[in-house]
Amino acid sequence: MSELLTNIGELTTHTEEHGTLRDAAVVIDDGRIAWIGPADRAPAADTRDDLDGRAVLPGWVDSHTHLVSMGDRAEEFIDRMAGRPYEAGGIMRTVEATRAATDDDLRARARWLRAEAYRGGTTTIEAKTGYGLDVETEQRLARISAEHAEVVTYLGAHVVPAGVDRRAYIDLVTGPMLAAVAPYATYIDVFCEQGAFDVEESREILEAGRAAGLGVKLHGNQLGESGGVRLAVEMGARSVDHCNHLSPTDVDALAGSDTVATLLPACDLSTREPFPPARELVDAGVTIAIASNCNPGSSFTTSMGFCVATAVLQQRLTFEEALWAATVGGATALGLDNSAGRISEGGRADLQALDAPSARHLAYRPGVPLTHKVWSSGNPV
Amino acid sequence: MSELLTNIGELTTHTEEHGTLRDAAVVIDDGRIAWIGPADRAPAADTRDDLDGRAVLPGWVDSHTHLVSMGDRAEEFIDRMAGRPYEAGGIMRTVEATRAATDDDLRARARWLRAEAYRGGTTTIEAKTGYGLDVETEQRLARISAEHAEVVTYLGAHVVPAGVDRRAYIDLVTGPMLAAVAPYATYIDVFCEQGAFDVEESREILEAGRAAGLGVKLHGNQLGESGGVRLAVEMGARSVDHCNHLSPTDVDALAGSDTVATLLPACDLSTREPFPPARELVDAGVTIAIASNCNPGSSFTTSMGFCVATAVLQQRLTFEEALWAATVGGATALGLDNSAGRISEGGRADLQALDAPSARHLAYRPGVPLTHKVWSSGNPV
Repeated sequence: MSELLTNIGELTTHTEEHGTLRDAAVVIDDGRIAWIGPADRAPAADTRDDLDGRAVLPGWVDSHTHLVSMGDRAEEFIDRMAGRPYEAGGIMRTVEATRAATDDDLRARARWLRAEAYRGGTTTIEAKTGYGLDVETEQRLARISAEHAEVVTYLGAHVVPAGVDRRAYIDLVTGPMLAAVAPYATYIDVFCEQGAFDVEESREILEAGRAAGLGVKLHGNQLGESGGVRLAVEMGARSVDHCNHLSPTDVDALAGSDTVATLLPACDLSTREPFPPARELVDAGVTIAIASNCNPGSSFTTSMGFCVATAVLQQRLTFEEALWAATVGGATALGLDNSAGRISEGGRADLQALDAPSARHLAYRPGVPLTHKVWSSGNPV
Repeated sequence: MSELLTNIGELTTHTEEHGTLRDAAVVIDDGRIAWIGPADRAPAADTRDDLDGRAVLPGWVDSHTHLVSMGDRAEEFIDRMAGRPYEAGGIMRTVEATRAATDDDLRARARWLRAEAYRGGTTTIEAKTGYGLDVETEQRLARISAEHAEVVTYLGAHVVPAGVDRRAYIDLVTGPMLAAVAPYATYIDVFCEQGAFDVEESREILEAGRAAGLGVKLHGNQLGESGGVRLAVEMGARSVDHCNHLSPTDVDALAGSDTVATLLPACDLSTREPFPPARELVDAGVTIAIASNCNPGSSFTTSMGFCVATAVLQQRLTFEEALWAATVGGATALGLDNSAGRISEGGRADLQALDAPSARHLAYRPGVPLTHKVWSSGNPV
């Protein structure tokens, strides 16, 4: 079955061939984009969806989430807004709730958040483990993540669980836990931060993951200049996420690398960390991604539209830069193929239509739910 | 027909008698709240809506909008994000689009934005004229505003239209235009700002409105210390809106008055003005309101949830303070009766249920559309 989407007021393709088109149409066939062009030259298709001037753009690629986790930390959030600082140790609250959950509980939660993300236009999602912190629960999280997310990242090295010997835990993370989780995961990640893992520990953990065939990601420089960014560049990490506290050396290191700097604007607001120097990063030639960091502790949102609006309103990215970062940037941070984050002939038909004439309304009309319709592999969701 | 709303996980009433209740129920009868109490003691009603643990709170009172206006200024917004400053003169772009619109165009626009506001939980809305700036169009705007908003404010003194003599325009605003609009309006408002009207002009205009029986409101201190706040206090204005640039004298003046300081967080983000000192205002004892300032130029959002989240995340209000400001505060800024912005026995049944166990999720989960259901005078909308 082929479907013609026509009367698209503004079509953002993120391709060199098509750029941004007005009065455009797209044909979807067998889950892929079969044709892109002006509405008045569109070929016939089995079905037809008249979008009445709406904007169509690629679905979001949310490259950093903790989709499978339990608990509600609204009270801690409220305390933080009243002045209590964010600390890595709060992670253990989510760990306790997650360990106590059944597989069915975790699946229900993942389905809920995934559905919410879809409704907000997210068509590709990464999910990290890291709220299990024992072999059995980390494996459960990886398995359930693989059912609900396109990319799974192993984050056994989120924090050292309370009451566990530090050295013994690193041995677990790099040994039996890695072996249990690796079959489900594409990446290994580590929280390289005061209160979590230092640079040497992080290097050891990431090297073990790499030896097991996983790509490398880092949480770095969220709460201070942890050295995480330089370690990421040194190890050729696919991405380093957070980047709130960067020295000029860090920016230079990123600019000379293929490592993506992943910005998490909703998390920055919720933890009150200073925003990363997004403008400076882009101007230095660093590839950036924007992601939600959806998790109950520091960023309990699935809304990529909110993240993009925040990046434009407050981080001095242009709208086009923010849109690119939340689609192509995220795809790059996940090592996906060239069609991801784009609407390109032959690529997967992952796209969203807005109740707005231009994608710019995502920043121009903050807080207004603008999603009209979302297609994942050509199927409305 | 009476309706029982039951299994309310958290009920925010903003009343001294009931405060915030868990496991609560509400009975609506004939558009009013007939009963509030624990779910297990609720009386019978003709129909029953099981809210399954959801949070219920008063509908938003959006006390500052420009609901009836035309045009899309997304390009100007994008330019501003790229560094061009916000100027009062941009208002003329909306004026041109508005004057060119038919009544049907204006009604369609008002219906669209009003429906969007309802979907976001807003049950009471104020609408200002001010994009007509000639007698005929200002009257049209007032008449159509009265069809779609609970409160209408006359803002002929938005700017002096291009090409019109300043003195002649003030005479128009305080003479024939006032006479044409006053039958539809409750308040008169003036944009007291560099590039719009100075303090003496503003006083003259507001006094004319007061003499015609209208209450007084001001746009003040948005772009600088315009003197608008002190004029508002001097004149016993119901509210002074924006308040981005306040001296200690301004804060003291507000604290010693009954004038509400209305904060417009979405506008502040879109114009990149510094946020008003919300924490300082509340600590000084000033009554604050939070409103959307919905208009195509400087704040094209209807989302009171976004405004509340921004106030909590970035303006250091507690969640309870922000929620109060966006409900009771707005009602106070509009001079509504004591039940507005509250869920109180005998009061109008204007309420919203969220897809969340607590209203706090509005700030904890920014960008996620949480509205489950909205009732206006007891009717689902």
